[in-house]
Amino acid sequence: MAKKKTESEYRSPKEVDTHLLDRIQKAGDIKAFAKADYPELADEIRAFLIRHISETGGHLGSNLGCVELTMALHIAFDLPKDKIVWDVGHQSYTHKLLTGRREGFDNLRQYKGMSGFPKRRESDCDAFDTGHSSTSISAGLGLVQARELKGEDHHVIAVIGDGSLTGGMAYEALNNASKLKKNFIIILNDNNMSISENVGGVSNYLNSIRSAEKYLDLKEGVYNSLMRSGNEGTVRAIKKVKSTVKRLIVPGMIFENMGITYMGPVDGHDVEAMVHVFEYAGRVDNAVVVHVRTQKGKGYLPAERHPARFHGAEPFEIESGMPKKIREKANYTDVFSTVMCKLGEKDEKVVAITAAMPDGTGLKRFHNLYPERFFDVGIAEEHAVTFAAGLAAGGLKPVVAIYSSFLQRAYDQILHDVCIQNLPVVLAIDRAGLVGSDGETHQGIFDLSYLASIPNISVMAPKNKWELADMMRFAVEQEMPMAIRYPRGEAYDGLEEYRSPIEYGRSEVIYDESDICLIAVGSMVKTAVEVREALKAEAYSCSIINARFVKPLDEKMAEMASRHKLVVTLEENVKNGGFGERFRLAFDEKYEKKDSPEFMHIALPDAYVEHGNVALLKKELGLDTESIVKAILEKHNER
Amino acid sequence: MAKKKTESEYRSPKEVDTHLLDRIQKAGDIKAFAKADYPELADEIRAFLIRHISETGGHLGSNLGCVELTMALHIAFDLPKDKIVWDVGHQSYTHKLLTGRREGFDNLRQYKGMSGFPKRRESDCDAFDTGHSSTSISAGLGLVQARELKGEDHHVIAVIGDGSLTGGMAYEALNNASKLKKNFIIILNDNNMSISENVGGVSNYLNSIRSAEKYLDLKEGVYNSLMRSGNEGTVRAIKKVKSTVKRLIVPGMIFENMGITYMGPVDGHDVEAMVHVFEYAGRVDNAVVVHVRTQKGKGYLPAERHPARFHGAEPFEIESGMPKKIREKANYTDVFSTVMCKLGEKDEKVVAITAAMPDGTGLKRFHNLYPERFFDVGIAEEHAVTFAAGLAAGGLKPVVAIYSSFLQRAYDQILHDVCIQNLPVVLAIDRAGLVGSDGETHQGIFDLSYLASIPNISVMAPKNKWELADMMRFAVEQEMPMAIRYPRGEAYDGLEEYRSPIEYGRSEVIYDESDICLIAVGSMVKTAVEVREALKAEAYSCSIINARFVKPLDEKMAEMASRHKLVVTLEENVKNGGFGERFRLAFDEKYEKKDSPEFMHIALPDAYVEHGNVALLKKELGLDTESIVKAILEKHNER
Repeated sequence: MAKKKTESEYRSPKEVDTHLLDRIQKAGDIKAFAKADYPELADEIRAFLIRHISETGGHLGSNLGCVELTMALHIAFDLPKDKIVWDVGHQSYTHKLLTGRREGFDNLRQYKGMSGFPKRRESDCDAFDTGHSSTSISAGLGLVQARELKGEDHHVIAVIGDGSLTGGMAYEALNNASKLKKNFIIILNDNNMSISENVGGVSNYLNSIRSAEKYLDLKEGVYNSLMRSGNEGTVRAIKKVKSTVKRLIVPGMIFENMGITYMGPVDGHDVEAMVHVFEYAGRVDNAVVVHVRTQKGKGYLPAERHPARFHGAEPFEIESGMPKKIREKANYTDVFSTVMCKLGEKDEKVVAITAAMPDGTGLKRFHNLYPERFFDVGIAEEHAVTFAAGLAAGGLKPVVAIYSSFLQRAYDQILHDVCIQNLPVVLAIDRAGLVGSDGETHQGIFDLSYLASIPNISVMAPKNKWELADMMRFAVEQEMPMAIRYPRGEAYDGLEEYRSPIEYGRSEVIYDESDICLIAVGSMVKTAVEVREALKAEAYSCSIINARFVKPLDEKMAEMASRHKLVVTLEENVKNGGFGERFRLAFDEKYEKKDSPEFMHIALPDAYVEHGNVALLKKELGLDTESIVKAILEKHNER
Repeated sequence: MAKKKTESEYRSPKEVDTHLLDRIQKAGDIKAFAKADYPELADEIRAFLIRHISETGGHLGSNLGCVELTMALHIAFDLPKDKIVWDVGHQSYTHKLLTGRREGFDNLRQYKGMSGFPKRRESDCDAFDTGHSSTSISAGLGLVQARELKGEDHHVIAVIGDGSLTGGMAYEALNNASKLKKNFIIILNDNNMSISENVGGVSNYLNSIRSAEKYLDLKEGVYNSLMRSGNEGTVRAIKKVKSTVKRLIVPGMIFENMGITYMGPVDGHDVEAMVHVFEYAGRVDNAVVVHVRTQKGKGYLPAERHPARFHGAEPFEIESGMPKKIREKANYTDVFSTVMCKLGEKDEKVVAITAAMPDGTGLKRFHNLYPERFFDVGIAEEHAVTFAAGLAAGGLKPVVAIYSSFLQRAYDQILHDVCIQNLPVVLAIDRAGLVGSDGETHQGIFDLSYLASIPNISVMAPKNKWELADMMRFAVEQEMPMAIRYPRGEAYDGLEEYRSPIEYGRSEVIYDESDICLIAVGSMVKTAVEVREALKAEAYSCSIINARFVKPLDEKMAEMASRHKLVVTLEENVKNGGFGERFRLAFDEKYEKKDSPEFMHIALPDAYVEHGNVALLKKELGLDTESIVKAILEKHNER
């Protein structure tokens, strides 16, 4: 039996012993384990995860943090009968291991491989697909009400991190869960990453209590003894203090009298303690929050020390914790980061907003330089955008940096709070286009469509790293809403010689030739250049236009396109409502049908795109150079 | 001097005395009033509002409720220097009166008249445009941070109702406001309409305290006396109770230790008391919530008794409170209401969800019949949709009824929680298309665009009342996400003879003739019929297709359209990404350009549409029969 490890002792799990893990083939197998084996099984799981994620990349810190929590859930509950909803979902690796998906880790997050998130189609032990933050209590509450109406008997457990609780949706759901008169277990996986500032002094106090039973005893004990011993005045006074305190914390508001039972905090690395509390929680006739304290990255020193780096890790060397591949080129986030620092220096009115992603968006440097002009609002995209609208109404120049798929959360705020008033908010939309291994919940492939139908907004996309900088400088000077979308990963550093000033609503002609006109948005300009090279070999000449603006559309593009036989639009966005369709409609409004060239729209289909390497996905979806060339030649041969 | 009226004494303010109101020409004029005149001024304002709204229609209850609150704000603060952000904004009538916009009430909410909501373009006393719920704290916090960074000196006040606090955005904003070390005043206008269930026992307790001073005294008093008098054990025990209570209410979570000062509750109909507290609140160096208790509809008995009816009222008889025009025909909401009751009877799996609109959506009857299958989640559209996804994942058939413009809030939840998993959630989208007098924040003119780019969803629109019922029955039988959008107001009861069964993805041919092919969506089918009649008089024959499905598109429509010289698409949605454009693109994919007919897309422009009578708006925007006929004839003469 392994001694219980309290500190990080296995920094180098190269040789992974899995003799305990080998006994787990399917959900429920863990129940046969002796309690004494729990720590060693946890060790094996950690070593397994570290080894695999070091090869495939993936979310390490959050998964190492909830090994014991997941074990306890699988011991206390019966899957798939009982339903676990994992908020965000990237912490579900141990859950996948314990439900017979061990082999999946060989191709985790790879094309056609196992998803890094819960997927109902992958296992009946995955009760609800997640990806974005703060959805689990809503979904869990739905499963609970369905259970009740169908007269079924099983548990529903939502597992939500402290960070996800900063999202308004979670609060809307809690507000509803509070009315419930049936069992619903909400596990608060508190790794002290996000709400530490908020809980402050109270969290210190909570720390001193180590189990639910102890806490429950104490509560009753103190209260009863006071009530018994005190005279009437004392009792009345205590009652008044209780009410006063309530009002001081939650001023006349929602959480008052919530009726959600609270248990905890429990040590999130003590399986037995958690099993005990979970079983207890399962007997309560209303919503119950079990507060579990865990440590992100637990058991792997580099991940404990650098939680941001190991949140979503690229493949790394286990010994050192360093990435296997050292990035040689800057990515778009780096470029954005640098230009924001410069803009901040130049103009005191420039302020920056992130929704819990200071590292991911590259705003950390701006934060270091201009802390008073930097706002991390938590996982709260809705607030982020309307807050920015307020800043703009107050005369500042806010830049809101949010990933494309997360900005979907703020669609109404963009439409209703920014654009109706035509406020000068700059949306810096990172991870636009295919993002790769995070898969369908994270692909940033809808932004051109959902933004283009909003009045008053302008939407740009840069072809290379210099253009992102130029567009940012341009955007903060405008007196209206501006969006710039740029992709994940390495910034294109070709076409440096093309750096004409950004003009409002104007595209940029890169090559003006004949035959085929390639009109590309952002990341696809690079592809267009490659396509042109390949077609040159086939004796076709290609013009290339860099659209720059997806909204408004430059009418000169149509003019130039009209002089070609074939017009090919290229974008990393769904075709529905995207650039190509909008351009074609604008073209048709202007030109007589009979003279019109043929059109081809290279874009993503009307479907969700699964996880996988971006290059592979592009190939599969016909967005890579080779597929595009092939499609163009086929189209040409048709004619 | 008027005696202070405590009950509803002026039910019939036909003859409105405005000798006090006459002294108010601009912001600040109210400051010159003697305190003794406040009650009579409030009376005059109420009488003025009742008389005007009885003529124009508008939001009565909320405005009658905050007459004194608004007076107190204008007395305690200096407008336009100080900034008030009105959450939702429909309660800003007294604010408009006190800022020199009295004449505007003659054409309130009418075309080219004064808006029923705050508008920055209307007055420099309107600090931020609002319309949707729960935005004011976010926007206000932005104004505060802008003030600080620019070194300005003024107050920012967000006025938010208890209902708006059920929206997650408000909580995201409060969570951020709690970190503030500068003054920011949040007025909680608690009319006990929405969160009564939540606050429960505590709100009773709060009732017993009638002013901020009293409260502050009490807090200090009780605590100090306990601390002084008690022995060591008592003191320790009290501290423990405090902590325990904290944890019981806000279990280890966000509002703990929030650092937001609370004052109140204050009588929201006592101007002097409020002025006193507001001035006090203005001196606090952090965010401060002032809890003000008001009565919705205050001073007008019918509005006090029927808050839902007088929330947004049509013109009414002052004596009786009854609408001037009795509706003769059912509106779409009524039809939806009836069919939901039938569906509920037929299938126990059908459940209904509303976001705080049981009356507005027509789900109240379903609630009465099947209370256990009805869920009012509060103003929480995000939660509503993901909760529905959870219900669907649990095997039920949820119908979520939300107005088109409010559903914008749940864009990500539709895309991410419902459609990725292809869950059978039915979205019943009321108030789709132009809604009229509420104006730009409430027009439901984007849904076809934002929904159509989401994979896996199907989108329908009924031509008349029978079709809405048929579509609802069809939708709940499908095993995938379905959306049905239908307009505000009277349900079309023409074309009863056209009632072929709904088939998935199939349109309905109403007339198959030659010349011109009119393809209409939902409400525009009626218009198409009128257009056809008018064109018949000009010797043109028109086919009419009722699209039924906006997504997926019926390819047979293109086939039929191809046999015409002119194809006219008609929809009440922005053109950008709407039905017409999508149809045309599908057509172009299929048919050779040279044979293709001319196209004309009747749709809304890429702009926000202001308030006004729907018929007038349609005329202005070219969506009425006459304009369409004219445009078609012009197009024809061009050829």
